[in-house]
Amino acid sequence: MQILNYENLSQIQKVEALKRPVMSVKEELGGVVEKIIDDVKKRGDEALIEQSLKFDKVEISNIKISQKELNEACERIDENLKRAIQKAYENITKFHQAQLKEVLKVETSKGICCELLTRPIERVGLYIPAGSAPLFSTALMLAIPAKIAKCEKIVLASPAKINDVVLFCAKLCKVDEIYQMGGAGAIAALAYGTQSVLKVDKIFGPGNAFVTEAKRQVSSDIMGASIDMQAGPSEVLVIADENARADFVASDLLSQAEHGADSQVILVCLSEDFAKKVQKELEIQLKSLPRKEIASKSLNNSKIFIAKDLNDALEISNTYAPEHLIIQTQNPRELLSGVKHAGSVFLGAYSPESMGDYASGTNHVLPTYGLTKTHSSLSLMDFMKTMSVQELSPQGFKNLAKSVELMAEAECLHAHKNAVSLRLRTLENE
Amino acid sequence: MQILNYENLSQIQKVEALKRPVMSVKEELGGVVEKIIDDVKKRGDEALIEQSLKFDKVEISNIKISQKELNEACERIDENLKRAIQKAYENITKFHQAQLKEVLKVETSKGICCELLTRPIERVGLYIPAGSAPLFSTALMLAIPAKIAKCEKIVLASPAKINDVVLFCAKLCKVDEIYQMGGAGAIAALAYGTQSVLKVDKIFGPGNAFVTEAKRQVSSDIMGASIDMQAGPSEVLVIADENARADFVASDLLSQAEHGADSQVILVCLSEDFAKKVQKELEIQLKSLPRKEIASKSLNNSKIFIAKDLNDALEISNTYAPEHLIIQTQNPRELLSGVKHAGSVFLGAYSPESMGDYASGTNHVLPTYGLTKTHSSLSLMDFMKTMSVQELSPQGFKNLAKSVELMAEAECLHAHKNAVSLRLRTLENE
Repeated sequence: MQILNYENLSQIQKVEALKRPVMSVKEELGGVVEKIIDDVKKRGDEALIEQSLKFDKVEISNIKISQKELNEACERIDENLKRAIQKAYENITKFHQAQLKEVLKVETSKGICCELLTRPIERVGLYIPAGSAPLFSTALMLAIPAKIAKCEKIVLASPAKINDVVLFCAKLCKVDEIYQMGGAGAIAALAYGTQSVLKVDKIFGPGNAFVTEAKRQVSSDIMGASIDMQAGPSEVLVIADENARADFVASDLLSQAEHGADSQVILVCLSEDFAKKVQKELEIQLKSLPRKEIASKSLNNSKIFIAKDLNDALEISNTYAPEHLIIQTQNPRELLSGVKHAGSVFLGAYSPESMGDYASGTNHVLPTYGLTKTHSSLSLMDFMKTMSVQELSPQGFKNLAKSVELMAEAECLHAHKNAVSLRLRTLENE
Repeated sequence: MQILNYENLSQIQKVEALKRPVMSVKEELGGVVEKIIDDVKKRGDEALIEQSLKFDKVEISNIKISQKELNEACERIDENLKRAIQKAYENITKFHQAQLKEVLKVETSKGICCELLTRPIERVGLYIPAGSAPLFSTALMLAIPAKIAKCEKIVLASPAKINDVVLFCAKLCKVDEIYQMGGAGAIAALAYGTQSVLKVDKIFGPGNAFVTEAKRQVSSDIMGASIDMQAGPSEVLVIADENARADFVASDLLSQAEHGADSQVILVCLSEDFAKKVQKELEIQLKSLPRKEIASKSLNNSKIFIAKDLNDALEISNTYAPEHLIIQTQNPRELLSGVKHAGSVFLGAYSPESMGDYASGTNHVLPTYGLTKTHSSLSLMDFMKTMSVQELSPQGFKNLAKSVELMAEAECLHAHKNAVSLRLRTLENE
């Protein structure tokens, strides 16, 4: 990891040093994905079965997982792992359950009642990639809030052959249907439906470049489906002072680095001495990691900033706007009010990212690539939407009528005015 | 308006009858808008000044409105209109202020504290179109929540020459800067910044096809800006029973119809007799409207459905998922729990859409084109984002550590596991 002294950088160098690498999307990707989507729209299940053989090298006869297959998969899982997942399930449920909102009801003026209500999104599709690691924890992060939101249909898709633990999590969360299908074709099937696959209103979940592009395409089609967010490479920024333990910090940097060679890892600390201690720890810990090649690549692109003080450290963090922000300082909570942009914040020595990734209760689906400046971490509300309501009593209406007439007239919207005048006349004649 | 008996339609005919017309976007639009955006990115203010002359036929020398220009505009406004706007301002403020959230803090297990915090989006840009009517009410609907959210910079753009009342509303809401610029160029300037224009993080507001396309383009560029939502033609669905007044209903249909020839207007009632009464009223009221040509065109594409009962009426409404839903029945509130999808609901005879459009307190920026199935009406939260926080005590960490180790291992993420094991060993050795 490169060490940079933040104070010594010019304004331009600061911006440059905190820039993320350009996400290179191959130009032909759009066209390839479009063809896959079209094929699923035209031939449905048949296309999905072909794609499974072609891309995932798995021959399947049915898209939908049967109850029997589900039960058998669950029986193959170690009881200790089941109990661990159950614990995570309880914490995640508790945190997302607490996000349920009461109806907001306000009398804005006498006789004028305004409300904000929430309604579940009817049908949601959850995509769980296979890839290098079977991310069953993501199944929990998506299915638990969907269930709490009371979505009417919750379906889950993952490439064949679906990992047993993913199936167990789907069952635990009472997902309605499970489909073995992957990649752009799976996203198309969820967005448009097939003989076996239910069309959904909104698609959630991470995926590779094909999945991301497919999500982009179906979400820009009004007949397609909405999506949760565009995902970029995962990232962490750690703020550490002299009280932090270099080995703890190094272990957190490595848990981000192992995600992928394009993972972004940044350490902000207060001295070169501490930075070097962390570098040494990284070398030691790296040796014993099975994914050390990936982690090394990621670390090579990563940076350590030396900040003048914790205020400067916060400035660096807010400029970067990280997905994960770990604060290991003497009084981590003191910094919290200064954090403007982050997906999820981890306070103190005993709150490593791993805890939030799996089991503390927060959601691990977070905006990346600087999007924390404008986007929220995934929450219950992503599975619901709000609608407003207003009810005016005749008196409430009367009090406001003249104002609205004037404003409608000033906007040259005479029918808007007339809808008020007509009622006002009626009330005055009563 | 065409009258259809819903019960007599086949399933396919039902779907067909409730389909919105295809939004035809001219193919060359994308390229034209791209050129305008590029020009603003390259030449900044100079390009904006040229575009103002070319598209809006107004010669301007400065982009930013001066304090003097602002004060002069405000002096030209009628005092009654000012008071009317002040009343709307107060109601809208009251409703959006109530949407401020307390910090959500949950102890998910002993020693594990999870929080959900909100933070304002730093810089927001509000776009107010000029077009056929000066929509100053939209300035209120965007600037009031931005101010309550405590966005650090709130800027507003509108084509030259900006309407006096729009300027008055901007001043009332304490907007930081006002720019006279319009169309795709204005969106580009907000997304990328120019010599005079501040780059913003998120752009809000309606606009014509050029503005909509420009918003789409800058929001798909990671270096651009986020946007509020994609806007389609405005729409209303009215549910009326035999107790409703045909003249009230007709006036509401017309206030939607006058928005544009592509406005969607739907009435759902319980008898052909009532439908015909409304048709007669439409004819009468239409005559005195200045915008009768636009309104007639819109009505020609619109439909009246005869439903068997109010349950059927709700089914029609939920299938259509309207932007505005007006319920004029004997007990309108009884239907509310059955409303699954709507942007804003208007309950009873004295809650015409006009009241919500201007002054009841609810926001008039709403999802259209069926997007109420997945999207929320604009609210305070669109000007903020949430981030999660977790803080584990050593004991809280210890209780959960084994579970996380097991899950990380099952996901083949050994560095994630190591970040936990290392801490666990440290605690056990203490």
